[in-house]
Amino acid sequence: MEPAFPKAEYDHRLAKVKAAMEAAGLDSLVVTEPANMGWVTGYDGWSFYTPQCLLVALELDEPVLIVRGMDANAGKVTTYLDHGNILGYPDHYVQQMDRHPMDWVAEEMSRRGIATGTVGLEMDSYYFSPMGYEHLKAGLPNCAFQNGQGVVNWCRAIKSDAELAYMRDAARIIEHTMRIGIEAVTPGIRQCDAVAAIYDASIRGVDGIGGDYPAIVPMLPTGFGASTPHLTWSDAPFKTGEATILELAGVRRRYHCPMARTVSLGKPPQKLQDASDVICDGIAAALDAAKPGATCAEVELAWRRVLAKSGFEKESRIGYSVGLNYPPDWGEHTMSIRSGDKTVLQPNMTFHMIPGLMLDDCGIEISECFLITETGAECFYDFPRPLVVKD
Amino acid sequence: MEPAFPKAEYDHRLAKVKAAMEAAGLDSLVVTEPANMGWVTGYDGWSFYTPQCLLVALELDEPVLIVRGMDANAGKVTTYLDHGNILGYPDHYVQQMDRHPMDWVAEEMSRRGIATGTVGLEMDSYYFSPMGYEHLKAGLPNCAFQNGQGVVNWCRAIKSDAELAYMRDAARIIEHTMRIGIEAVTPGIRQCDAVAAIYDASIRGVDGIGGDYPAIVPMLPTGFGASTPHLTWSDAPFKTGEATILELAGVRRRYHCPMARTVSLGKPPQKLQDASDVICDGIAAALDAAKPGATCAEVELAWRRVLAKSGFEKESRIGYSVGLNYPPDWGEHTMSIRSGDKTVLQPNMTFHMIPGLMLDDCGIEISECFLITETGAECFYDFPRPLVVKD
Repeated sequence: MEPAFPKAEYDHRLAKVKAAMEAAGLDSLVVTEPANMGWVTGYDGWSFYTPQCLLVALELDEPVLIVRGMDANAGKVTTYLDHGNILGYPDHYVQQMDRHPMDWVAEEMSRRGIATGTVGLEMDSYYFSPMGYEHLKAGLPNCAFQNGQGVVNWCRAIKSDAELAYMRDAARIIEHTMRIGIEAVTPGIRQCDAVAAIYDASIRGVDGIGGDYPAIVPMLPTGFGASTPHLTWSDAPFKTGEATILELAGVRRRYHCPMARTVSLGKPPQKLQDASDVICDGIAAALDAAKPGATCAEVELAWRRVLAKSGFEKESRIGYSVGLNYPPDWGEHTMSIRSGDKTVLQPNMTFHMIPGLMLDDCGIEISECFLITETGAECFYDFPRPLVVKD
Repeated sequence: MEPAFPKAEYDHRLAKVKAAMEAAGLDSLVVTEPANMGWVTGYDGWSFYTPQCLLVALELDEPVLIVRGMDANAGKVTTYLDHGNILGYPDHYVQQMDRHPMDWVAEEMSRRGIATGTVGLEMDSYYFSPMGYEHLKAGLPNCAFQNGQGVVNWCRAIKSDAELAYMRDAARIIEHTMRIGIEAVTPGIRQCDAVAAIYDASIRGVDGIGGDYPAIVPMLPTGFGASTPHLTWSDAPFKTGEATILELAGVRRRYHCPMARTVSLGKPPQKLQDASDVICDGIAAALDAAKPGATCAEVELAWRRVLAKSGFEKESRIGYSVGLNYPPDWGEHTMSIRSGDKTVLQPNMTFHMIPGLMLDDCGIEISECFLITETGAECFYDFPRPLVVKD
């Protein structure tokens, strides 16, 4: 396996991160989000279940990758880093109560001469625990700490052409996968069999382009379960009279293109049909509003104006920035399409807009994954939006 | 979907947790590990990508589940909790820099009268961030805090018969899946096509028993990549002359039965064949040593004695407690089969023993998932261990 991009792109990314660090007043940044580590260096492996990080310091030319000892070779396989900058900590640090791999990280920062100044920490990262935080602070008595959450994430917001190419590959995969998924949701077929078909399609990919694993497993809430969006499957069969939400993603080299569609087996209740109409109108209005110079909040407002006339209610955000990611989330944790988010849209930003409506006893989700162009918004795929009714 | 166990089992588990809390001097425990939340209540959904927790307090009869608003119905679908004890926080807490869902949790603890005394926190949990930790501490000025990492995990160590039944189902699924996987590793076949077949088999399951998603995606390091254990797949084809490690799991209702095997395409180098022999002998010796009353370290020592005669070296632990789990890890983060772990084995503990040997330019993993019985160790599956050589 080789890094997903040429070295020049990683050099450019590192420069961008260092500029963001300088602007934030950081001397160094302990990067712990797998997507951020991967974006800066190419590092790719399912090794984030033990603590790991990428040290980026203004004073160091190259970042330093620190992973569990057995994972160091994964750094050699998947990054361009000098092997002297790929370090494995000893295994006796793993899952102990009296020590933590962040002790070793702090010592390495001292050895590298970067155990001073202001250190940024990704304070709301999944793979940086409070225990790691306490041990790192204790090991770096001469440092000041600052919340560096989002520093790298924001650098990821505007995609390069090469990144967009992966997302377009992922779009081809999700078009194919969603067709397979909708076909599989059939009365009497077990949910797990539909998911098996979905996985098979999304990992084989299309047109010679293989698929990667999604940061969120296939979501398949059905019937009453569809009144909440994040249930996974069981081995119960699909039933006539029930609706099923399919929230899936095509993934290429960790770049996601998510899509949600909803299937009704038999004639849907009127409210579900109405909800479908509102969502389709709302998505169209929001996409019209999405263009460079508009804010995320303005895009949401276009949706909300359609919603207000409908009688339906929705409290939650309708979308977020999307791209490179690892479990448990494909969202980038930067911009959200919601009221109050004043982020100004720029060309090559990418979003997943998913204005789901959870009703009391059922639910519906329809989504689009789109790109901000020079003049507006361009959807990554062309796939009919309305509620799919199978008789 | 219904909870995976009868209510009496959840009642028993809650009593066990409360006893452990008393022993640890905790008045309340903020449970944030999805597996712990699920084990205590049945809660099951891919909602852990936004902060959530289960409040267990000695003073409260029932725990209180707090999730993002849209996920509250997932609590109603998958747990026995009184609906008054399933709470959703407002969406404006999600992914913001100036507030955190743990602010809301602290307020709810005050409303419930449990914002005093000693509060246990799972300090090394994936889904409890330093930012959540800081906000929770700030919101609970009258509480003392204690590291409650492992309190619930240790309660999970000894499995009930009903849990073992799920693990036995998972064993049937992994036997079937590994056969499919080994078959798929063939010169010229793309890695992603093998993974697609593996997913399909493991999710469809066998004998009418559907499969669940594994906490770790299929691991498929191949060739030089197999010198490190946690690489996932690409769409490159398998090559004659290379070995591929398959580390997979069967999963039933979130209970895992993992298995690793290694396939050589063509005649393997002698060192790989030798490594296979050492691992097979070492596993047999370690399984012989595994019985009630023995310690984890004694089991590891039996392996290490075999290893010492071989010329191979291995620093890392060779196994860990396994069962119910969510991404990114199927290990329970309690006992490890390693030098220094003095945990005494008891009947119905369950382990995954995986003494992999990572060599300079290739690697091999062979594993067993086993149960401590009244007299010894019982493997969950019966599957040939040695390096599979396909000519």
